[in-house]
Amino acid sequence: MSNKKQLKLGTIIHGVGGNIAAWRHPEVLTDASVNFDFYKEQAQKSEKAKFDFIFIADGLHINDKSLPHFLNRFEPLTILSALAAVTSHIGLAGTVSTSYSEPFNIARQFSSVDHISKGRAGWNVVTSPLEKTSLNFSKTIEEHPDHAKRYRIAAEYLEVAKGLWDSWGDDAFIRDKDSGVFFDPEKLHQLNHKGEFFSVQGPLNIGRSKQGRPIIFQAGSSEAGKDLAAREADAVFTGHPTLEEAKKFYHDVKNRAAAFGRNPDEILILPGIEPIVGRTEEEAEQKYQEIANLVSIEQALNYLGRFFEHHDFSQYPLDEPFPELGDLGSNSFKSGTDRIKQEAREQKLTLRQVALQSATPRTPFIGTPEKVADRIQEWFDSKGADGFIIHFNVPSHLSSFIDHVVPILQERNLFRKEYEAETLRGNLGLPYPENRYVKNTIKTR
Amino acid sequence: MSNKKQLKLGTIIHGVGGNIAAWRHPEVLTDASVNFDFYKEQAQKSEKAKFDFIFIADGLHINDKSLPHFLNRFEPLTILSALAAVTSHIGLAGTVSTSYSEPFNIARQFSSVDHISKGRAGWNVVTSPLEKTSLNFSKTIEEHPDHAKRYRIAAEYLEVAKGLWDSWGDDAFIRDKDSGVFFDPEKLHQLNHKGEFFSVQGPLNIGRSKQGRPIIFQAGSSEAGKDLAAREADAVFTGHPTLEEAKKFYHDVKNRAAAFGRNPDEILILPGIEPIVGRTEEEAEQKYQEIANLVSIEQALNYLGRFFEHHDFSQYPLDEPFPELGDLGSNSFKSGTDRIKQEAREQKLTLRQVALQSATPRTPFIGTPEKVADRIQEWFDSKGADGFIIHFNVPSHLSSFIDHVVPILQERNLFRKEYEAETLRGNLGLPYPENRYVKNTIKTR
Repeated sequence: MSNKKQLKLGTIIHGVGGNIAAWRHPEVLTDASVNFDFYKEQAQKSEKAKFDFIFIADGLHINDKSLPHFLNRFEPLTILSALAAVTSHIGLAGTVSTSYSEPFNIARQFSSVDHISKGRAGWNVVTSPLEKTSLNFSKTIEEHPDHAKRYRIAAEYLEVAKGLWDSWGDDAFIRDKDSGVFFDPEKLHQLNHKGEFFSVQGPLNIGRSKQGRPIIFQAGSSEAGKDLAAREADAVFTGHPTLEEAKKFYHDVKNRAAAFGRNPDEILILPGIEPIVGRTEEEAEQKYQEIANLVSIEQALNYLGRFFEHHDFSQYPLDEPFPELGDLGSNSFKSGTDRIKQEAREQKLTLRQVALQSATPRTPFIGTPEKVADRIQEWFDSKGADGFIIHFNVPSHLSSFIDHVVPILQERNLFRKEYEAETLRGNLGLPYPENRYVKNTIKTR
Repeated sequence: MSNKKQLKLGTIIHGVGGNIAAWRHPEVLTDASVNFDFYKEQAQKSEKAKFDFIFIADGLHINDKSLPHFLNRFEPLTILSALAAVTSHIGLAGTVSTSYSEPFNIARQFSSVDHISKGRAGWNVVTSPLEKTSLNFSKTIEEHPDHAKRYRIAAEYLEVAKGLWDSWGDDAFIRDKDSGVFFDPEKLHQLNHKGEFFSVQGPLNIGRSKQGRPIIFQAGSSEAGKDLAAREADAVFTGHPTLEEAKKFYHDVKNRAAAFGRNPDEILILPGIEPIVGRTEEEAEQKYQEIANLVSIEQALNYLGRFFEHHDFSQYPLDEPFPELGDLGSNSFKSGTDRIKQEAREQKLTLRQVALQSATPRTPFIGTPEKVADRIQEWFDSKGADGFIIHFNVPSHLSSFIDHVVPILQERNLFRKEYEAETLRGNLGLPYPENRYVKNTIKTR
């Protein structure tokens, strides 16, 4: 086996599609978002292709203008757990918010998935951007916390979760039938956390997993998000329209990680991309247009509005410059809305152009298998990415990618032909995290 | 097929055992509580025997005196979901507390398991008896709520969950690609619940399942517990040392259900039993002693203490009458501790006797296959039970029961030879719950 560093690939499974109208495509199963057989097939196909992980995105608030996939879909922890039972090597990552749940419950559920899957769980830590989410949870939190506070909560939440995952030493369970000793009391630890938002005694009622603890993904791209990722995350789920921006982000987060005393190789930067592969450039372009044409301008305006706290964009003229919105959006999808405003200003886009581009982004990853593989290699080689989280609006696009792009990447020795490990951590090439309570041991690393 | 009403059977899977020392038995896998292959095998074996459901018990607080199984085990929703992927007909029921979680999250996760399993989920609603549980959750709730308040919370929580499960009409999702209509907006409902403890707007981001909504189990046996069960539950998980008590409880809950305007046939009373089956009476007794002898008196005192708010029983003389404890225990496992006190008083038991009997109860269901089948039939025919939730401390006891008792029950036409339905609700013989928002329809029932 070559020692050359290879890229990491995950794929998002999102039922009827992340695109607002993809469900209308002839190939899409209209009940895919709640169809377990579909999820199973997608996960097994991704595992056969040796992908590092599948990824389940999430949200906690819907209204009648939400994307079809958001209205009626599986909850991440439960679907990941079910997929654990029908796969053996692929990682199982999903989004759970830290703003509307209890660290004891979520740390426990992720650890349970980690045990069920024998060390393949990953948690994408998000803070719930949507303002109205609090209306489904007002027992605990009266108002949706502002952006800065959400990130303070997330940081403390993650500190508690990591602490709970160390409740038991790696070799705490002795299980000696003869002596009747089930565990070593010296390796059972109470967390006794008392912080600004949480007070959690522990211990957690589940031990360390085969990979120590679940892999932490972080998806925020704001300053607070990048700092949290640089300090705590194993992998960063990001997104960039150009390689230049990707390189800037990559450099920025790796530097922040180093500033926190971490080895920058131990935090993976994984931009989301949406490749569309055709045998020819024309076929790829045709596939893109097929999706784009399914979206009406009304749907595109609704979709855009969601990022801006469900703002009603139908009040503005379509073919005039993108409206001035002031601070709107800064308390929900901050980095995304900042970018939309900036691009509209710089490129002098109309509202129609912004809306259609948001609904069906034209990415650099559209073209022949060689072109898409070249772009992936370019981003990887020039330090814009350690790998990618790939999403597809139409299931056949996953098959095209697997059948035509993956073999080129393998040929170039950029991607594995066999799994190196049985755990997600092992396949991502990340080190096993030592339990915080380990003392007086000779470190061999 | 005969029209005779048959009994319902579920089985608890609990890893290294519900008994404090069963893990030391030669046949027990010492890592069973976090061994997915073990759970899968037990679930598939139970499905082959046509059991109605498997059941996962739970708790949210441990200390160094907790049962081995409690220290390091799967979380119910995640393990049920994984088991959904490797079974096809058996129901998947588990315990989740209403005292330390959010109704939006739990209603959603149970519905997700219900969709993944195509209509086989069941939720055992409990209120977390252990006083110290709050120490793991003190962000939300400063103190462990008292017994009465926990039941008020549970009732409102369940009201919210049932409301959220009706967010979408049964036929809300139209999914017509030509017209572009994904759902009927008139069949999308906001709950807008505002109560004493919860305020939840909705809608839930998942629709109705194949069985409408998950089956509700309730396990409290106090007055408040029985009322909640009689009003809201589909099945009651209870436990009685004698048939007389079982009949009294059965009659009581069925009458309460009728008083709430329900059909008493639509709430199933399912006592927990722990059968031990031998080819002869002697072999059964020997199997019982094998388990009982694994428990030391120290362990038995610890186990007893857990029911009484972790009371330290080692301070009392072992062979004198069971100590006077006043109100102790009334805010945790109320009905259980009341019964222990009463039995000790009536039968003039010593502390040693009470402790050993608590750790390894000698039940009426120990004996030859015929004797165990007779007892089951007796409880069923004389209206002490509509079925049973069976637990075993040693996995081979499940096999003995399946191989030797189930065929007798089938022979007597007391238990099914094939599943009648694909959903848990269908197999339990319970009616499909109509969506609360259905109006102006001609009722054909």
